[in-house]
Amino acid sequence: MKRLDATILNIIKQRPEDSFKGNFGKVVLIGGNANFGGAIIMAATATVYSGAGLVTTATDTSNSFSLHAQLPETMFVNYYDKVQLSHLVSEATVVVVGPGLGDDFHSQEVLATVFANTSANQTVVIDGSAITMMTAKQIAQPAGNIIFTPHQMEWQRLSGIKIADQNVAANQAVQAQLNATVVLKKHHTEIYTADETYQLPIGTPAQATGGMGDTLAGMIGGFTAQFSDSIQATLAAVYAHSAIAEKLAETQYVVLPHQISQSLPKFMKQSVNNRG
Amino acid sequence: MKRLDATILNIIKQRPEDSFKGNFGKVVLIGGNANFGGAIIMAATATVYSGAGLVTTATDTSNSFSLHAQLPETMFVNYYDKVQLSHLVSEATVVVVGPGLGDDFHSQEVLATVFANTSANQTVVIDGSAITMMTAKQIAQPAGNIIFTPHQMEWQRLSGIKIADQNVAANQAVQAQLNATVVLKKHHTEIYTADETYQLPIGTPAQATGGMGDTLAGMIGGFTAQFSDSIQATLAAVYAHSAIAEKLAETQYVVLPHQISQSLPKFMKQSVNNRG
Amino acid sequence: MKRLDATILNIIKQRPEDSFKGNFGKVVLIGGNANFGGAIIMAATATVYSGAGLVTTATDTSNSFSLHAQLPETMFVNYYDKVQLSHLVSEATVVVVGPGLGDDFHSQEVLATVFANTSANQTVVIDGSAITMMTAKQIAQPAGNIIFTPHQMEWQRLSGIKIADQNVAANQAVQAQLNATVVLKKHHTEIYTADETYQLPIGTPAQATGGMGDTLAGMIGGFTAQFSDSIQATLAAVYAHSAIAEKLAETQYVVLPHQISQSLPKFMKQSVNNRG
Amino acid sequence: MKRLDATILNIIKQRPEDSFKGNFGKVVLIGGNANFGGAIIMAATATVYSGAGLVTTATDTSNSFSLHAQLPETMFVNYYDKVQLSHLVSEATVVVVGPGLGDDFHSQEVLATVFANTSANQTVVIDGSAITMMTAKQIAQPAGNIIFTPHQMEWQRLSGIKIADQNVAANQAVQAQLNATVVLKKHHTEIYTADETYQLPIGTPAQATGGMGDTLAGMIGGFTAQFSDSIQATLAAVYAHSAIAEKLAETQYVVLPHQISQSLPKFMKQSVNNRG
Repeated sequence: MKRLDATILNIIKQRPEDSFKGNFGKVVLIGGNANFGGAIIMAATATVYSGAGLVTTATDTSNSFSLHAQLPETMFVNYYDKVQLSHLVSEATVVVVGPGLGDDFHSQEVLATVFANTSANQTVVIDGSAITMMTAKQIAQPAGNIIFTPHQMEWQRLSGIKIADQNVAANQAVQAQLNATVVLKKHHTEIYTADETYQLPIGTPAQATGGMGDTLAGMIGGFTAQFSDSIQATLAAVYAHSAIAEKLAETQYVVLPHQISQSLPKFMKQSVNNRG
Repeated sequence: MKRLDATILNIIKQRPEDSFKGNFGKVVLIGGNANFGGAIIMAATATVYSGAGLVTTATDTSNSFSLHAQLPETMFVNYYDKVQLSHLVSEATVVVVGPGLGDDFHSQEVLATVFANTSANQTVVIDGSAITMMTAKQIAQPAGNIIFTPHQMEWQRLSGIKIADQNVAANQAVQAQLNATVVLKKHHTEIYTADETYQLPIGTPAQATGGMGDTLAGMIGGFTAQFSDSIQATLAAVYAHSAIAEKLAETQYVVLPHQISQSLPKFMKQSVNNRG
Repeated sequence: MKRLDATILNIIKQRPEDSFKGNFGKVVLIGGNANFGGAIIMAATATVYSGAGLVTTATDTSNSFSLHAQLPETMFVNYYDKVQLSHLVSEATVVVVGPGLGDDFHSQEVLATVFANTSANQTVVIDGSAITMMTAKQIAQPAGNIIFTPHQMEWQRLSGIKIADQNVAANQAVQAQLNATVVLKKHHTEIYTADETYQLPIGTPAQATGGMGDTLAGMIGGFTAQFSDSIQATLAAVYAHSAIAEKLAETQYVVLPHQISQSLPKFMKQSVNNRG
Repeated sequence: MKRLDATILNIIKQRPEDSFKGNFGKVVLIGGNANFGGAIIMAATATVYSGAGLVTTATDTSNSFSLHAQLPETMFVNYYDKVQLSHLVSEATVVVVGPGLGDDFHSQEVLATVFANTSANQTVVIDGSAITMMTAKQIAQPAGNIIFTPHQMEWQRLSGIKIADQNVAANQAVQAQLNATVVLKKHHTEIYTADETYQLPIGTPAQATGGMGDTLAGMIGGFTAQFSDSIQATLAAVYAHSAIAEKLAETQYVVLPHQISQSLPKFMKQSVNNRG
């Protein structure tokens, strides 16, 4: 198992002078039912602040007001509009599905529409209740370069490995079956890929608060949309998430998820600068 | 009567490295009718910024937009959905009921649902109009470790002691009957517990503004969810609330309630650091 | 005509240690139709940040979300609810009516309800379209200690004096008939009272932007609720409004109204400190 | 082709002492359907923060909450209310149409109402999908001093010149036919006017993110409302937009559109100060 360190941030490259927003990907985030709207707002905020070119948030209509009240930089789509959602997903560079999606019948419909419209050349981040529904309803893994971001209980559901038995070898075996990247969120998060297993040696207990995972999912969406190797981009997102939290935790007892996102533009710039 | 001092903040402990959000409690806040939505928003903000692990706000649907527009870190539940509210309350570590709840027939229904679902191992903070309705409608005290947070008029209603007659002995007698912790909010707030009576010697007139009590109720919710002795946690919340206000009042004529909440992460970290 | 100077800020008194929110007044603001919701939000923000004890905003229901999204410290009432509005107005210390109220039939109904419920011991600030409707519909001046805050065109409508003819003597004559305080908003605002006429010698063209008048109306509401002489309090609000703007304009080309409000707590504290 | 430099900022003049909001123009912005509300919010924010006197935003009703939640300084109009929209447009100094407007049947109706009510003495900024609809539906250019703000694909649609063939001579020829100012947004944006072609030599790839164009459209609206030569004002807005972005990009990997707007008051003041 390889320990991640700050060199992974080298994936954050200096943007070429002649850039336009189309160079930095189209990210679509799907989630946020009438109860969990905050989750998709936090995820979309992370995507926007990490520099993705175009960000659209497909969510329950009741969330559109609070979304735009704090993040005018994203577009909104009603995720029950199958025509619009299908089109949106099929046109995306990166799809992030799950934050606050819920797991009722309506959520399943949304998930089915998303999964029916992804394709092999897309990155698809599957988070939260999207993972839970896949296992509960035996929904097949969609087309695309898949990144799962389960916490330990969600990983138990997806992998069939009980939390107590979640060791590296067992996890690697399931990762191989899934043919996906797995970000197993825990104290010292582990990332399983086809070639290597990574461990995150940093982090702070000040991060242990609701919404941190949604923010991470959004960051992975933003990083994979911009930086060409999706595994390296995922690792950099995981590392940056905790590195920012550690910095904030020097003066804060708890770190709020939105603070991680708001710190991204300066953190990413410093990473570029540090390489000289 | 014992005077509180800064040593009570020792209850704010350094978090163990291997923490996850589940270690820091599930807090459910119930309140905020169509008129008083700001009250429950302020309370929930205080709970989130004090570091509680998972925070859900059960309120009138019309408040969900403004809630998530400023606090995506909380989940939302329509408090008229009895099934969802019952489930939510029964699963909580700490329940905070009352901020902006109002006292009409609908508010009584909500209160009845909450009280029917608490249990002995939970902490239940009863604030504002929840206290008023208990006395006006002779609603029995619910199961749980009860913390009342009345101002003097609410205490008159609850205790039957007129404001002019609210002295320590009389208050202690009623506290014993209630078998609850009583935070009597006033200039130099008093806290009545089974074993001891405490007085808060700090505070500032810059705190004398609408919403300060809602913020305190939310802080008590956040502190009792995280720190194991609920009385000590309550005392620490009361002290921190006024200590932060005093600090802000050095440069402000009035302190806004949301500013107290936003100051919590740094204040709590400093408290930990001050102990070396 | 007397020139206002910073000594008028002496009305901002050090709060007594043993204060509670009830000492600092109940202010009710009425305004903000479906189009002009921002106006009443700006006014209410000014009232809250100036330190009023309890602030309620009666406005169109469509404004409740945006109001609470940025100002949870105020309560909300639907201004078409005549029962609630009547009760609210009759219980207030200070009433501010007009910001963004509009002047259609519905606005007239609201204004009539407000005017029918004020009483002699209340301060009533009449602003914007409330002034326009009084003159267009010949609505009589309500009971109370009246403060009009017209700009020059509104003063022309109210006084019958054309802008070109608005000189001190003519204005004083109408002020005497009205038996009210008149804050005539213009470059070097003039304040007409029964005993004296004042001129504001400060101010900046960076203030010349929409919403500044709404903010001033809210500040007058907040100051008169707290400081006992309503004329002195009005003068102090007018002075503070422009003094803060001047300070901000040292580094800003335009000053946004909400920035004035957010500067109030520190400005007011400095005023108290400057007196030693 | 003339290279723009900081001297163009001299158009930002010191405001005369005796100013009132009426001196700084009435700007009406029209755009923001149910999906793209963020675009018109960002545009209106730029207009307000650049110092326009009175700013009204005509948009889908669903955007009114998020608009006022962050920008109380603007008024709101439902853009499907033809009577109100017609009146509003005909009374404006400057009209900005297009940000987030969409291009469906309803959007076309709105555009037709706007175009039917402009007049020769107004400045009309035509952006985004308004350009697309003009070309797709062969809608004639409206009365007024027209400023188009296309990106390269929109310019292809409007001019008939394919992106690969968009050179200065070809663009100048179409500009002459259109008899309008054209701000062709790209790396090193070009501005085509009747007398001269300008190139913007500054800018940063940190600007390459969704919403930057909406912000620029709003700034052009705000600058042309205040500064008498509309071409000079447009050039200054284009320059200021990128100059602010460059400054922010010194410490940020990506610059958020709303950060440009919030920086305007200080940037504009510094421009005035730099001239001594």
